[in-house]
Amino acid sequence: MSTVAAPIDFWFDFSSPYGYFMSEKIDALAARHGRSVRWRPFLLGVVYKQIGSRPITEVPLKGEYSRHDLYRSARFLDLPFALPQAFPVATQAAGRAYYWLAAQDGALARRFAQATYRAYFVEGRDISQQAVVLEIAGETGADCAALAEAIATDAVKDMLKAASAEAIAAGVFGSPYVIIDGEPFWGADRLPQIERWLAGGF
Amino acid sequence: MSTVAAPIDFWFDFSSPYGYFMSEKIDALAARHGRSVRWRPFLLGVVYKQIGSRPITEVPLKGEYSRHDLYRSARFLDLPFALPQAFPVATQAAGRAYYWLAAQDGALARRFAQATYRAYFVEGRDISQQAVVLEIAGETGADCAALAEAIATDAVKDMLKAASAEAIAAGVFGSPYVIIDGEPFWGADRLPQIERWLAGGF
Repeated sequence: MSTVAAPIDFWFDFSSPYGYFMSEKIDALAARHGRSVRWRPFLLGVVYKQIGSRPITEVPLKGEYSRHDLYRSARFLDLPFALPQAFPVATQAAGRAYYWLAAQDGALARRFAQATYRAYFVEGRDISQQAVVLEIAGETGADCAALAEAIATDAVKDMLKAASAEAIAAGVFGSPYVIIDGEPFWGADRLPQIERWLAGGF
Repeated sequence: MSTVAAPIDFWFDFSSPYGYFMSEKIDALAARHGRSVRWRPFLLGVVYKQIGSRPITEVPLKGEYSRHDLYRSARFLDLPFALPQAFPVATQAAGRAYYWLAAQDGALARRFAQATYRAYFVEGRDISQQAVVLEIAGETGADCAALAEAIATDAVKDMLKAASAEAIAAGVFGSPYVIIDGEPFWGADRLPQIERWLAGGF
């Protein structure tokens, strides 16, 4: 019997720009080391309320810096990026859609998540709007009518609530947050450490 | 006439572990690109009061993570490190000593700063104690009696106060904070971006 390594957990909020950066890198990085990635959107606002934190853009001085750092980090990682006019936004619709899609078809859910991040951080579409989320889902091949019906149900709302509670239980306090065999990495700037960790270099 | 590039500003608090990491890397990195570095200790507590922030170790969840991240980051950067038992600590004595020494002898002040960081983050000595600061200064070749007298004066206290005010005016909100020709970089994890910036790669 061969031992199959557990998937890497990639926790993120769809409104997190550093989460978007990570989303563009983590799959290929993990694959180079024979690992798969489990994408886990959650609601960062729920976590912030729990720990008494707030978006970096709302902290004096840090807000101005972070706008600067975001564009420089995007260039550093060679990714297209434009800070959306409405930022940050609520991501309930996107998160619910993700978990409902994931329950049907993991590959479709992954395509939807990537498309949602790009729609928001490259094309500037307002992903807080359910209509926009449905549009993106349709573009990635989902059944929009069924999705629209599903994300209004308590069962699907509970999926996202449960994910956010699980994030807190796992110690997640920001986005992106990557956990590899219990080892936590916070922030897209930890990509080099993740790489070395996967290579067994620590 | 040749144009000499302005020195890089390296802002730090002596109680900041990521500041210690930066202190071990920034001079050599700058030198590889023909730049000098101006070391600027300041009081992070004064800045935190200004912006309503607090040490990461005091934030729920982040505190536990940061202890973890610190040891991993030290290994990643190939630096000796041990989180001191008393952490964080007040750094008035160290900051005042630095500015008084810098006014006499820049090279001596630099040696003192490096020795102070290593005394705290490698040897675990309590740099909040003036006696310890004087001891370190003596080990690096300073006149301890004159230093002890100087750091009790309002003139020297004002040097550190002025530096902290200047830090705030420059937009500094954390440690380490590096400013290169107006471009700000927060955190030891921005070393790769600093390197690319100095190489003209952005």
